[in-house]
Amino acid sequence: MPRPATGARDRLVESTLTLLRRGGLSAAGLNDVVAHAQAPKGSLYHYFPGGKAELVEAALRAYGERIGALLQRVLGGQGPVAQRVGSLFEAVERRMAEDAFTQSCAVGAVVLDLSAEDTRLRDACRAILQRWAEIAGEHLPELPGERREPLARSLITLLEGAQLMARAEQGARPLREAARAFNDLL
Amino acid sequence: MPRPATGARDRLVESTLTLLRRGGLSAAGLNDVVAHAQAPKGSLYHYFPGGKAELVEAALRAYGERIGALLQRVLGGQGPVAQRVGSLFEAVERRMAEDAFTQSCAVGAVVLDLSAEDTRLRDACRAILQRWAEIAGEHLPELPGERREPLARSLITLLEGAQLMARAEQGARPLREAARAFNDLL
Repeated sequence: MPRPATGARDRLVESTLTLLRRGGLSAAGLNDVVAHAQAPKGSLYHYFPGGKAELVEAALRAYGERIGALLQRVLGGQGPVAQRVGSLFEAVERRMAEDAFTQSCAVGAVVLDLSAEDTRLRDACRAILQRWAEIAGEHLPELPGERREPLARSLITLLEGAQLMARAEQGARPLREAARAFNDLL
Repeated sequence: MPRPATGARDRLVESTLTLLRRGGLSAAGLNDVVAHAQAPKGSLYHYFPGGKAELVEAALRAYGERIGALLQRVLGGQGPVAQRVGSLFEAVERRMAEDAFTQSCAVGAVVLDLSAEDTRLRDACRAILQRWAEIAGEHLPELPGERREPLARSLITLLEGAQLMARAEQGARPLREAARAFNDLL
């Protein structure tokens, strides 16, 4: 399949994300990434001299910003809160359906693979998840004041859990039920 | 550290579970399992002639029954529903705290590592998650009749998501907030 003529760095990052979303840290070995990106191996060491940890961290940061922008756009849109929350889960459903529910959140997949020593990657994952919860809280003023932050965090918890369940079921039901459950809360 | 004198098969299953809970499928390589279990390699092929898929499936089944019994005991106990749901998340918190939040649900860790071809393991994971949701539904008669099944499934979704988030944060907050969020629903 011919590849669009994007730069090697972008292709390496995108391939890393695809492989992380599919199988976590172990699926994104450097040789797998180079093969998937159709990039020369030298480009990997050129752009990411720190090796796999640096590459994965860059990929997670890009993913964090992308999903953060999605949260901002969908939850910050027009309409009642139930509709905006529903649209968020629908957007995730569309992304997952593209690959027949064989890929899920890159951050979630990495988190469940972390060993106790992976402090750098854990810090990156935690920061991204916190940022997503902050964005959700900012764009859901309908959540009751004193419960806004914990409920926004639980929305991210539900989103991560629902992606996991949707992968097990290979279908959208867990995402739809999670959206409904969160809306029942409001 | 001396091992209790349990049989080699049990030790292989328990070691597989520990390694799955820590790092998913890739962490539970056959050599890793044999080393962790302090079992002779021959015992692996003796008890699990089908190799890794058979070993992982046996470990997941044992885990499914264990957590199923926990759900039954805690959700089927005495007291108001909010207290029983709280006890469930507290039990999971205690399990995770034992290992400083470096291990989470074995099924969740496997699901996020599955490739499209791993149909046998995916079927096993889906069946376990469904069974857990059924047990939750049976023991939460307080859930509104027509919403009992989807809400029981969303409880499992929340439990999986909260374990993932607790690993990222290396702390219990996501579990406590998820319990509170679910109870807000009722």
